[in-house]
Amino acid sequence: MSKPLPDILVVGQSGGPTPVINASLAGVISEAQKHDCFSGIYGLVHGIEGALKEELLDLKTETAANLELLAHTPASALGSCRHKLSDDDYDRILEVFGGHNVRHFIYIGGNDSMDTCHRIAQVAATSGYDMQVMGVPKTIDNDLAFTDHCPGYGSAARFLALATRDTGRDLEAMATFDDVTILEAMGRNTGWLTAASVLGKETEDEAPHLVYVPEVPFDEQCFLDDVTRVHDRLGWVFVVVSEGIRDADGQFIGQHKLRGGGSDAFGHVVHSLTTGVAAYLTDVVREGLGLQARFLRPSLIERAMSACVSETDRKEAWQVGVDAVTHLVAGRSGYMVTLERVSDDPYHWETGLASLDEVANAEKLLPSDFINNAGDMPTQRFRDYGLPLIDGPLSHLARLRGTRVLKKVNQGTA
Amino acid sequence: MSKPLPDILVVGQSGGPTPVINASLAGVISEAQKHDCFSGIYGLVHGIEGALKEELLDLKTETAANLELLAHTPASALGSCRHKLSDDDYDRILEVFGGHNVRHFIYIGGNDSMDTCHRIAQVAATSGYDMQVMGVPKTIDNDLAFTDHCPGYGSAARFLALATRDTGRDLEAMATFDDVTILEAMGRNTGWLTAASVLGKETEDEAPHLVYVPEVPFDEQCFLDDVTRVHDRLGWVFVVVSEGIRDADGQFIGQHKLRGGGSDAFGHVVHSLTTGVAAYLTDVVREGLGLQARFLRPSLIERAMSACVSETDRKEAWQVGVDAVTHLVAGRSGYMVTLERVSDDPYHWETGLASLDEVANAEKLLPSDFINNAGDMPTQRFRDYGLPLIDGPLSHLARLRGTRVLKKVNQGTA
Repeated sequence: MSKPLPDILVVGQSGGPTPVINASLAGVISEAQKHDCFSGIYGLVHGIEGALKEELLDLKTETAANLELLAHTPASALGSCRHKLSDDDYDRILEVFGGHNVRHFIYIGGNDSMDTCHRIAQVAATSGYDMQVMGVPKTIDNDLAFTDHCPGYGSAARFLALATRDTGRDLEAMATFDDVTILEAMGRNTGWLTAASVLGKETEDEAPHLVYVPEVPFDEQCFLDDVTRVHDRLGWVFVVVSEGIRDADGQFIGQHKLRGGGSDAFGHVVHSLTTGVAAYLTDVVREGLGLQARFLRPSLIERAMSACVSETDRKEAWQVGVDAVTHLVAGRSGYMVTLERVSDDPYHWETGLASLDEVANAEKLLPSDFINNAGDMPTQRFRDYGLPLIDGPLSHLARLRGTRVLKKVNQGTA
Repeated sequence: MSKPLPDILVVGQSGGPTPVINASLAGVISEAQKHDCFSGIYGLVHGIEGALKEELLDLKTETAANLELLAHTPASALGSCRHKLSDDDYDRILEVFGGHNVRHFIYIGGNDSMDTCHRIAQVAATSGYDMQVMGVPKTIDNDLAFTDHCPGYGSAARFLALATRDTGRDLEAMATFDDVTILEAMGRNTGWLTAASVLGKETEDEAPHLVYVPEVPFDEQCFLDDVTRVHDRLGWVFVVVSEGIRDADGQFIGQHKLRGGGSDAFGHVVHSLTTGVAAYLTDVVREGLGLQARFLRPSLIERAMSACVSETDRKEAWQVGVDAVTHLVAGRSGYMVTLERVSDDPYHWETGLASLDEVANAEKLLPSDFINNAGDMPTQRFRDYGLPLIDGPLSHLARLRGTRVLKKVNQGTA
């Protein structure tokens, strides 16, 4: 009698890393190790490219201590990729999976990855290859549909809330030098991260003063009017914009001046790696208003910085990984694990399921009631939504409370 | 008999903020409140400009709770400035100080501020105006002489160590897309902050791979050779450069292409607010090597981010503020409080004193044994110096330990 075939679980990470995507991976491995039904736990090296190249890592013996550490390690420990699959690729994936008797597949990623996951499940079913598939959500962009929010968002949002609040204090102290500062947040199509810049703002005069998202058409003259209004009132202006703001015709702002434009394998327009819309808008401010302007573009730092991780985000990321495995064990397939909000305050959440065919390539925009009518500031509803995700409210900062000393010296020469 | 004149202590903050300069201010106020010899504690609003404009804040009644919170608040709570004083200004300052019977002056700042402090002391002495003066060091640049290091440096250095390590992990995961990443750290004349980017690096292959500081002349062809060598070996390159790297003739690299050049009130060359040397070098890499290149420029975020504060830095910042007051009470004047290192491991420190006339406008460069002979990587001596200042070593990150699964499928079509 021949030995039974090994029954392998494969897990991969895909797309741009987050500070907590490894927590999801650790959750998957940790849970899978508890179940004898998996004779092996393999990781895809650099996402689906690892399947195409048959580059697999044996994860069965990762220790609990290393998995705990992994949950506190930013970026994708297995390596990631942004590979758009061709029809031939699917055959190759099934060939490799078949060769190792991979019967369970978990893919951790965003919209495109859920599409990949869904299509692999379809091809397997069409080919009569028996394999269970589960998606685990991951994206700092927070744009996956059918889930309240996405693991990774809370931590990147926390970075943006902290960076805006803290550099806002810096600029406020130096208000005599810098008129206008424009911070560019990630977000090609959605303003979730940009909106998060308000989550550390306590008063009207604190940063940010103006917030522009892709969901609201951007008009350069309105922008200059807005900047002028705030500058007249405060003497300094802190603006936050999404990398993907566009005009009423849907054209990216400043795209005509950006270098290195093009599109990626998924047909998304790629902004230059060097400059971006905030750099363009500093020119618009300087030329249009004659004010000093600088831009801040944290770029990859906002999606990697371990010091800004939201512990809520980390816990949720771990749990969606765990639950992907428990659903496989329960015989389910073809779903993405979701996060469902039970209540805002106190914040309670639980996981759920959404069908992969619904999730694949769907995109969740910022709802209209999360942005004010002027289109330049997130609303209280957004704050209520976002604060628990960043472990908010942020620790309060001080202001000096003393009163001004009465002047008693003549005007002098100054 | 007339009432005795009030005997006022004035404190001001100057130059670019740090995440812990308010801890020094809190230390000053907290200690001054304990001494009856100060009938008033005033703060200068926006540094020495507050003296010129007679804008003073009464700090006597700040509560202990608010001072504790202040010590955890980034940026300069009193407001800051970069005002170069004219001869008339000194007369005006003494006029205002005299009008309020200011007899004790503490200025928290960097080189230029220590110069200001020193000259005010000189002018007061020449005028026969009896006033004690103390300087409190503050600068993320760490370039003040006669002190082992400067409050503010440890926290900005911790930011750079974390940002480099964490975005390094991100890029490593995505190594198939981004060939070369160039992070620009603050530092016009000195490489202290840039060097700190290595403080989270554990292995040869981790970021950063190349580190360039202003103390070592920069050659573009050598740089391209270095990048090529690392890229050939690893497939990705993480470079960190100081904003002020320059060539063998002392010219800032890329200065000929920077916009908005000019010099500030102190005669320092000001790089453009928009672009900088890292942006320039990405072009050099693209054009010279045909590799993809992007830059990261955390800019103000690196000197403001409260989430990256070094607790050692915060404690030291508080203590130099406290000690400035105790030295005034003991009758001393004309000094800057310094930090002296008693031992590296375990790290012990104490405060000391340096004469303001020695400190004023002196600048401490990175010693030659803190950078390797090739001029592209800080040495172990630098690491020993820097680690305790950032509360290092940083928490260890995980790597997966599993072995590669043996290939068993034919090459297929991929």
